[in-house]
Amino acid sequence: MAIECSRISRMLAELAQFTATPGCGVTRLPFTPEAAQAADYLLHRMQESGMDVKIDSSGAVIGTLPGGSNREFVIASHYDSVVHGGAYDGIAGVVCGIEIARQFARGELPFALRVIATNDEEGARFGSGFFSSRAFLGLHSVRELKKTCDRNGVSTYDAMKQAGFVPETIGQCVWNLSRVLAFVEIHIEQGPVLETEQADLGIVTGIVGMKRRMVHIYGQAGHAGTTPMHLRRDAVEIAAHIICRIGDIARRYPGAVATVGHIEASPNDINTIAGTASFSVDIRSLDARAVDAIDRHILQYIKMTCESMDGAYDTVLTLDQPPAPMDEALRRRLQHACVHCKVPKILDLPSGAGHDSLAMAGEVPTAMLFVPSHNGRSHCPEEQTDAEALVTACKVVHDVLYHFMEE
Amino acid sequence: MAIECSRISRMLAELAQFTATPGCGVTRLPFTPEAAQAADYLLHRMQESGMDVKIDSSGAVIGTLPGGSNREFVIASHYDSVVHGGAYDGIAGVVCGIEIARQFARGELPFALRVIATNDEEGARFGSGFFSSRAFLGLHSVRELKKTCDRNGVSTYDAMKQAGFVPETIGQCVWNLSRVLAFVEIHIEQGPVLETEQADLGIVTGIVGMKRRMVHIYGQAGHAGTTPMHLRRDAVEIAAHIICRIGDIARRYPGAVATVGHIEASPNDINTIAGTASFSVDIRSLDARAVDAIDRHILQYIKMTCESMDGAYDTVLTLDQPPAPMDEALRRRLQHACVHCKVPKILDLPSGAGHDSLAMAGEVPTAMLFVPSHNGRSHCPEEQTDAEALVTACKVVHDVLYHFMEE
Repeated sequence: MAIECSRISRMLAELAQFTATPGCGVTRLPFTPEAAQAADYLLHRMQESGMDVKIDSSGAVIGTLPGGSNREFVIASHYDSVVHGGAYDGIAGVVCGIEIARQFARGELPFALRVIATNDEEGARFGSGFFSSRAFLGLHSVRELKKTCDRNGVSTYDAMKQAGFVPETIGQCVWNLSRVLAFVEIHIEQGPVLETEQADLGIVTGIVGMKRRMVHIYGQAGHAGTTPMHLRRDAVEIAAHIICRIGDIARRYPGAVATVGHIEASPNDINTIAGTASFSVDIRSLDARAVDAIDRHILQYIKMTCESMDGAYDTVLTLDQPPAPMDEALRRRLQHACVHCKVPKILDLPSGAGHDSLAMAGEVPTAMLFVPSHNGRSHCPEEQTDAEALVTACKVVHDVLYHFMEE
Repeated sequence: MAIECSRISRMLAELAQFTATPGCGVTRLPFTPEAAQAADYLLHRMQESGMDVKIDSSGAVIGTLPGGSNREFVIASHYDSVVHGGAYDGIAGVVCGIEIARQFARGELPFALRVIATNDEEGARFGSGFFSSRAFLGLHSVRELKKTCDRNGVSTYDAMKQAGFVPETIGQCVWNLSRVLAFVEIHIEQGPVLETEQADLGIVTGIVGMKRRMVHIYGQAGHAGTTPMHLRRDAVEIAAHIICRIGDIARRYPGAVATVGHIEASPNDINTIAGTASFSVDIRSLDARAVDAIDRHILQYIKMTCESMDGAYDTVLTLDQPPAPMDEALRRRLQHACVHCKVPKILDLPSGAGHDSLAMAGEVPTAMLFVPSHNGRSHCPEEQTDAEALVTACKVVHDVLYHFMEE
């Protein structure tokens, strides 16, 4: 039985129907009916592929092909989505895992093969994310589950109970990490690099480090008609002077990015000079020193601009995440497998986005394989990845697994 | 009986209690219970001052001291407020009018003296504003009253009926303009110029012309982590480059202002490069050519910036209001009265804000007197103007009236 393109396409199309927003992309938030439908679907497909399946207390669907030892080879990605997201993000890696496992269902493995569909990687409902992978590492407490809430004030704890889970048993999700031979994640790139470089697959060098700040600029609100230009302290004008330099600062560091994605002015009236302007700054690079240097430069520029334009400011560091390099040996195995499978062009590239692999990388040998995204689009209904490219990724991971078996 | 500071203060304090937001400034939207309370209060104070009083179909409270001819001298300002506004904007001019009329209650006037508290000048509920003054000019239709709605979808028509008015009679508000000798408005400055220049009163040269645009910048939404800097078309970055030049362009034209008070990005996520950024541009000057030149420069800069940064744009002109010069002869009368009343320092200045006088200026001899605002603040609970300064304004208008009587 070979890896089948049509089966991958069919599974993805069927899974796309488990959404809260039919016709407007995939919205599959954790602990919702849509999530339960998807988990049930995955459970049955894993069983058909010959696996023993359970759903753990975090909502992760875990399929296992038992092996000749207590070691485990894990293929994982997530089955939740963002709001109005696409049909590939996360779930494509799960479907690939099932398709790979199917190839080994009749043979005897020297180690267990686990295919895992993790829950709430995105954090789109409760803001945190990496929910299952953090559960595998024992990082949750019941107290915290009661504290984190969605927009409607429903806590993770209550959402879990409503979905039929027992939050008190979250501790039972913890893994014996010493058993994990490898943690491999196939994921869509969610960016334009592979397509632009006409690469067939990407081998992730590491997941970038990240700093996020909220910047608040304080001027003086005033009537847009009655305040002469020389008596103004316009928070939007000050913010604009800062924002238009942030990209330039980041561009000095190859591979680094900095983004102002969120901005708001107060009172935000056409008729009123803004008293406050707030914006987010998101800085990422695989090089922690570059992240720090960009952050420092931006802070200096904020200070300088506010001084010269008579504004005040404060900034709040909301995230400070060090880079997570992928496992060197596993990366080499993926490279050899690509050669062996005659993949025409592969590219080493960092992952600019967080993944379950970010949580796992410090704990077990972890690697990621990226599959090209059409036009680099992701987190939107237009998200698309060729099923043929997913087949190539499956073949590469299958080859890695095969070589692990021979050792 | 002299003009009394304490009576002005007391009336303003009592009127400030007719608000939908006690403790958080004055919120007196048209056709609300607060507006009805204020109108009733003004009706009684006008009657006490010896005037015949009616409330017209637009909600304007009109007090009349009859005179020896059918000519009319009008002192007017508005009694509605913005949301969380102050206790002086508009209403201070009405209170001054009542106080001035009180001085003439026992004498015989050669013309009628009218004190008018107009309704819905601000447009804070239905978006349009100048409601009573437009009614005086016959600019409303019942069809339009049914079309304009507040945030809850209540039309002006229905709001009027709920408040006990008869929208079908709006046409009865129309004035015989040929009878109007003068339309004088006392108003707080709502800006910092008089205070900064240590002037006691301001004589308005004209109400500025205004152009407003909404500018929409289109880039390409993308993941903030996975899209390299050189493959981005970041709408917020493009918008920032434009916005930080708008102030500089306006500063080249003395007396002109340009403001970006409203800005929004889409999707406005920390994690996502903005695909769209929209912002308002509000341009004002007493010189129509300056308004046009600034608008043209800004449009050129938008075009240039979008071309060089690979963005697209469109702009919508939402307001194009020519300047309204005040009546030359009335202005001279105010200047002479200031000299006569020994006002230490007066200043000629344009009004950067719209007023009922803007609507009336083209139709009848119109003038405005500005009274200093503390710190230039307005449209906020901190709005404040000294009662002594209002007394000075009353004396000046009283003097103008006196000289009209002698002619």
